[in-house]
Amino acid sequence: MKGPIGAYAPKIDGREKITGRARFVADMKLPRMAHAKFLRSPHAHARIKSINLAPALAIPGVYGACIGEELPRRYGVIPVAQDETALALGKVRYIGEPIVCIAAVDEDTARRACNAVEVEYEALEPVFTIEDALNPAKPVIHDEARKPSNVLRRVFQDYGKVDDALAGAHLLVESTYEYPGSTHVPLESHAALARLEPDGKLTLWSSTQNPHYVHRDVAKALGMRDADIRLIKPAVGAGYGGKCDPFCTDICAAYLAKKLGRPVRIVLEREEVFYAHRGRHPTRMWLKMGFSAEGAITAIDFKAWAEGGAYASYGVVTSYYLGVFMTLPYKLENYRFESHRLYTNKPPCGPKRGHGAIQPRFALEMHLDKAAAKLGLSPVEIRQRNLIEANSETCNGLRITSVGIKECIERVVEASGFRTRHGKLGPNRGLGLAASAYMCGALHPVYQNEMPHSAVQIKIDRSGEVTLFSGTADIGQGSNHMLAALAANELGLRPEDVRVIEADTSLTPVDLGSYSSRVTFMAGNACLAAVRPLRDKIAAAVATKFATETSSIDFGPDGVGTDTSRVSWVDAVWLAEEKFGPLIQGGGYTPPKIGSRFRRQSVGPSPAYSFTAQVAEVTVDPETGVVTVDKVWVAHDCGKVLNLAIVEGQIEGCVYMGVGEAMSEEQSYQQGRVRAPSLLEYKIPTVHECPEIVVFPVESNDPEGPLGAKEAGEGPQLSTAPAIANAIHDATGLWMEQPPFTPERVLKALERKQRGRA
Amino acid sequence: MKGPIGAYAPKIDGREKITGRARFVADMKLPRMAHAKFLRSPHAHARIKSINLAPALAIPGVYGACIGEELPRRYGVIPVAQDETALALGKVRYIGEPIVCIAAVDEDTARRACNAVEVEYEALEPVFTIEDALNPAKPVIHDEARKPSNVLRRVFQDYGKVDDALAGAHLLVESTYEYPGSTHVPLESHAALARLEPDGKLTLWSSTQNPHYVHRDVAKALGMRDADIRLIKPAVGAGYGGKCDPFCTDICAAYLAKKLGRPVRIVLEREEVFYAHRGRHPTRMWLKMGFSAEGAITAIDFKAWAEGGAYASYGVVTSYYLGVFMTLPYKLENYRFESHRLYTNKPPCGPKRGHGAIQPRFALEMHLDKAAAKLGLSPVEIRQRNLIEANSETCNGLRITSVGIKECIERVVEASGFRTRHGKLGPNRGLGLAASAYMCGALHPVYQNEMPHSAVQIKIDRSGEVTLFSGTADIGQGSNHMLAALAANELGLRPEDVRVIEADTSLTPVDLGSYSSRVTFMAGNACLAAVRPLRDKIAAAVATKFATETSSIDFGPDGVGTDTSRVSWVDAVWLAEEKFGPLIQGGGYTPPKIGSRFRRQSVGPSPAYSFTAQVAEVTVDPETGVVTVDKVWVAHDCGKVLNLAIVEGQIEGCVYMGVGEAMSEEQSYQQGRVRAPSLLEYKIPTVHECPEIVVFPVESNDPEGPLGAKEAGEGPQLSTAPAIANAIHDATGLWMEQPPFTPERVLKALERKQRGRA
Repeated sequence: MKGPIGAYAPKIDGREKITGRARFVADMKLPRMAHAKFLRSPHAHARIKSINLAPALAIPGVYGACIGEELPRRYGVIPVAQDETALALGKVRYIGEPIVCIAAVDEDTARRACNAVEVEYEALEPVFTIEDALNPAKPVIHDEARKPSNVLRRVFQDYGKVDDALAGAHLLVESTYEYPGSTHVPLESHAALARLEPDGKLTLWSSTQNPHYVHRDVAKALGMRDADIRLIKPAVGAGYGGKCDPFCTDICAAYLAKKLGRPVRIVLEREEVFYAHRGRHPTRMWLKMGFSAEGAITAIDFKAWAEGGAYASYGVVTSYYLGVFMTLPYKLENYRFESHRLYTNKPPCGPKRGHGAIQPRFALEMHLDKAAAKLGLSPVEIRQRNLIEANSETCNGLRITSVGIKECIERVVEASGFRTRHGKLGPNRGLGLAASAYMCGALHPVYQNEMPHSAVQIKIDRSGEVTLFSGTADIGQGSNHMLAALAANELGLRPEDVRVIEADTSLTPVDLGSYSSRVTFMAGNACLAAVRPLRDKIAAAVATKFATETSSIDFGPDGVGTDTSRVSWVDAVWLAEEKFGPLIQGGGYTPPKIGSRFRRQSVGPSPAYSFTAQVAEVTVDPETGVVTVDKVWVAHDCGKVLNLAIVEGQIEGCVYMGVGEAMSEEQSYQQGRVRAPSLLEYKIPTVHECPEIVVFPVESNDPEGPLGAKEAGEGPQLSTAPAIANAIHDATGLWMEQPPFTPERVLKALERKQRGRA
Repeated sequence: MKGPIGAYAPKIDGREKITGRARFVADMKLPRMAHAKFLRSPHAHARIKSINLAPALAIPGVYGACIGEELPRRYGVIPVAQDETALALGKVRYIGEPIVCIAAVDEDTARRACNAVEVEYEALEPVFTIEDALNPAKPVIHDEARKPSNVLRRVFQDYGKVDDALAGAHLLVESTYEYPGSTHVPLESHAALARLEPDGKLTLWSSTQNPHYVHRDVAKALGMRDADIRLIKPAVGAGYGGKCDPFCTDICAAYLAKKLGRPVRIVLEREEVFYAHRGRHPTRMWLKMGFSAEGAITAIDFKAWAEGGAYASYGVVTSYYLGVFMTLPYKLENYRFESHRLYTNKPPCGPKRGHGAIQPRFALEMHLDKAAAKLGLSPVEIRQRNLIEANSETCNGLRITSVGIKECIERVVEASGFRTRHGKLGPNRGLGLAASAYMCGALHPVYQNEMPHSAVQIKIDRSGEVTLFSGTADIGQGSNHMLAALAANELGLRPEDVRVIEADTSLTPVDLGSYSSRVTFMAGNACLAAVRPLRDKIAAAVATKFATETSSIDFGPDGVGTDTSRVSWVDAVWLAEEKFGPLIQGGGYTPPKIGSRFRRQSVGPSPAYSFTAQVAEVTVDPETGVVTVDKVWVAHDCGKVLNLAIVEGQIEGCVYMGVGEAMSEEQSYQQGRVRAPSLLEYKIPTVHECPEIVVFPVESNDPEGPLGAKEAGEGPQLSTAPAIANAIHDATGLWMEQPPFTPERVLKALERKQRGRA
């Protein structure tokens, strides 16, 4: 395809980032701006008996403070789980929970003022574990709820005849897995800046992935009309799911700006980001699968318990996502899953890259290797024998359109020499394979409505400039470039000819947010819906000039017209504006209403699915237990590559994050206290730990994706950890069922194995 | 009419202004920003032999400079008069012309650097007067032109049989008038800030009335694509026509930002604003009119010579406007006019409030009083006997729709007691009447195209917020409020519920600019064209919900629906977005193609005309010659009042400016040097000189105006000066044919009269 699609192209906003011109909240200053800080709870579970602000307010340079009682309206993105307040209200539920927010002339003064606040607590028994949360004898963390319970949500779904199938299986494999919690570690911490406007409205700059939902929740928390708040997402230093919620930064900055009549900025310190969290749910999983003698999956019976921390966040969604993608990319008839999402006295868990699907995928893909080993099949064979096909429906009601999984597996198996090298690398070296699938956005919004999930507004100016307004939140993933490239491609322009105005609730039409890998698919389709009528008008005007058919008009770098008669782009725009008036067009995307026998049960399905296969190669040092991931081959079916640089970058980022979760990252606690709330101790991989990554984009050209595109930003992470785990098994014979595969754990497992042999 | 139309309402952006929140260019700072200053010519006419920048560039803190040779592309808003460069190129043409622009760390350093530049000149004979300019023996100021001449434009138009009518007239009145030059004196001086973007594009903040034309000319001057320049008009501290041109501030800031790779800001000092000028053309006028015995105007023969300064600016337009409105508001069959717009070695004249029409109106309305006196008619009678009527065409081809002039005259005559008090106030006190008409935007853009003159883009958000994007330039006149009120009125909202995004070439669709009183009429109509389809969608969606007809749905403060069934505004928006998708709409306004037997000759006509009548009451001190304007009654046919506060404010501002031109203001020169380039000496009226002003809005409800509106920002000035002159005649018997009516002039005239009697 000619034009700006597919090739390796620099992002349109890349220069702004590398020159330091992009402005993050922490770069913003406004006249009379106050800086605010939080006092945070030292208790995991306690009632607040009293708060004495007087000593804090007496400090020179302190402008004012707010406490939970001033912001009593509970909110939360998920309508059925509105359990949060910006500041603890009546009780604290985790160590690090914000209690008081104080605005002052500078951060130091605000911090000193926080330290001067006197809080009296009455300690309560904390709930720290899955067992505690399931134990009705333990205190209920949300005792204010209508139906108080430490189980936020139980999901049970049952498709086909699981018990019969298991009973009739040639082989049963049953294990328990423990997937750890981890956190996102965006380079930019959470930050917000709020300003009261002269007309009483508020402007809020927020480092967020989800301007629309945050907009609604800030309004709710403040008791304001949505229309009186303007939420602007400036440059954001990544989110990975960690900036999907409204945060205390947003709400307290907005509230204090209103209360104090001056702009208020809050930038979290790195330690505080670990308390803001919303990271991966630590998840215990029990998995039982039945196989035929030929390796066909006959049934999956799956249970998961996700420990969610003190607030709901997206936990209700997590509880569904834990089960809903489990069947992919395989075909089976019998599937049952049950999940619990639990409250504990820890910082809240929420969505993290591959939301909800990372943990079960780890279990399932190890399970397949276990079964293959028992059935005498290679890991490649057992997967190939079970692959779903395009234009099908899974037993749990997912409508499948394009499927590139077969090619993905082939590409990585081929490139890694898996067929000849697996099982043959000698002691302490191994190869592992895993496959996975993920969504391209959810069919349903988080609150009930039938409005478009994404809209794009395009103005083509007579100067020739194209301005594209979109509520999408580019958080570094490249959605601005994606939109510009799609629009430019239709008009024969370069992506840099399209100015993208993003994520400003007053300027841009709603997009639901950068979550669930929905943006390319949904906003991309909205973009095409907006640009194509404009293209048609321009083509019609040029066709009239040349007395020809509209269909014979094409758009290219040399202008608009036919093979023989062309006008410049600007001239074409003039002709169209003269003929049709202002070239302004909105376009929206609403997911299809997919009918399914299971529709009532499925909250998670998507209009399309991406697929991944990857092979990891590892070396295990038996003396130290150190596992080195030497290389990862990853093939990802992203539908259609819109920008190879971004697709490769996203896939590499996924593998990187998967390596981190598999090898070293864990948000762990000691009596409710985050063990390592710093980048010195919370071990994200450095360049030394990151393997060589070989990326193969696979283009399945989804019939409903924009130009065929699906997603690349989350799905590829799913199969990284299990591929590594399977490689460790290949290297050592160990089934490491609990990441991260730290030297301690590996060494212990090696010793246990040694002892077992001895 | 219910809703936000008509009543006295605070401007939506009023609070921003009075709280100091509105940001003018001079309030803006960018990292690494340089400040630039101009070196200006001390010669009125000279060749530049050499420029030595070295001593300037050697000064610490100087970042760089530019000279005319770097910006050689001539530009100008009017395509046929592209004679300007941002910096003098080869020769200087007036004292104060910028020659060098120097950017430095601060203004003081830049100023010192300018003073250090060494320029060698070769003096040329200057051209200072109308006689000089018409004298072919004098040097040609634009010797680079294709057809070198000091006559920029001669216009000759001849309708009916003027000579026959004059020959057959019962009465002939013939006089010569001298209307002085004056300048606008906006409180904010001209200013621009430019930034080079990381992608090589430019952003330019300019204190301009005409973002679109300035945008084009800056691109032309810099040799860039229009689409690569983003022009933003921030808050502007008024223009009155003085900020219609591209200025050296805009082009040099942009060029130096590009050249130096750092933001560059230029804010003119007050003295420099007098050199930037573009003010009223000093105009000599010869007028001969024929009348019947009953006072009917039988013919007008009119000649005008406008002395235009060193560059064309809008002078070509001026040359037409000097004649085109002359016939209004009277009916006559025979009209001839000839005008010359001349180059002289002074700062360029251009458009000032009432552009081109102020001077001839002064002559005509005094002429009518002279004729009335000779015919024994009252000033009221002679005007009433000649008034044009609605839905007619003037002899020079102006299509007339609504006409409120009869009521205007009646209102001011009645309120001032003119009929009983005129001629009877005793010595040295007098009343004067004058009438006038002005345009509501031009039928033709300044460059040839058939595109809309104005476009508005509206997004209705599901939050309920309405965002209106418009290229109109609010320079204090209230166009933002006007647009918000029109949109709000259709939707049952308050103007403050509509967010207006204005005058940013990247965000907003083109509006041709705030000139020729076009904005309310044209952008107002574009606004209705954008909002009404959205209103229709919302009405249709609500009608569907209530199973009723769309036509039965109304919009009000209590929501949307029928008399019995209503939903809230936000709910109505949701219903519409669910039914129709994104609520985004563009609308445009293109003036009608008015057929006329004279069309080929008329470049100035408008889709509609406003009408004014006013009575001034004066007291003359015969000892000192001091004339005091005691009171002005002014009635203005603005079509339909959209906001009474703004209409009254505009009318008062017109009268104020008319009083200034009549009484004290004059941009005068001594050998080409501005005599009084400061607010200490250039005498704008203070509160002590400003008369009591009684305003009567008259609503003629134009059939093509938005809700019937026309204009109020320029027309009312036209009749102020002649009303005062006629009042002086009533008080003293003097025909003062040359404003301003300074004590010196009045005293001299009184002495002359005394001598004549003696």
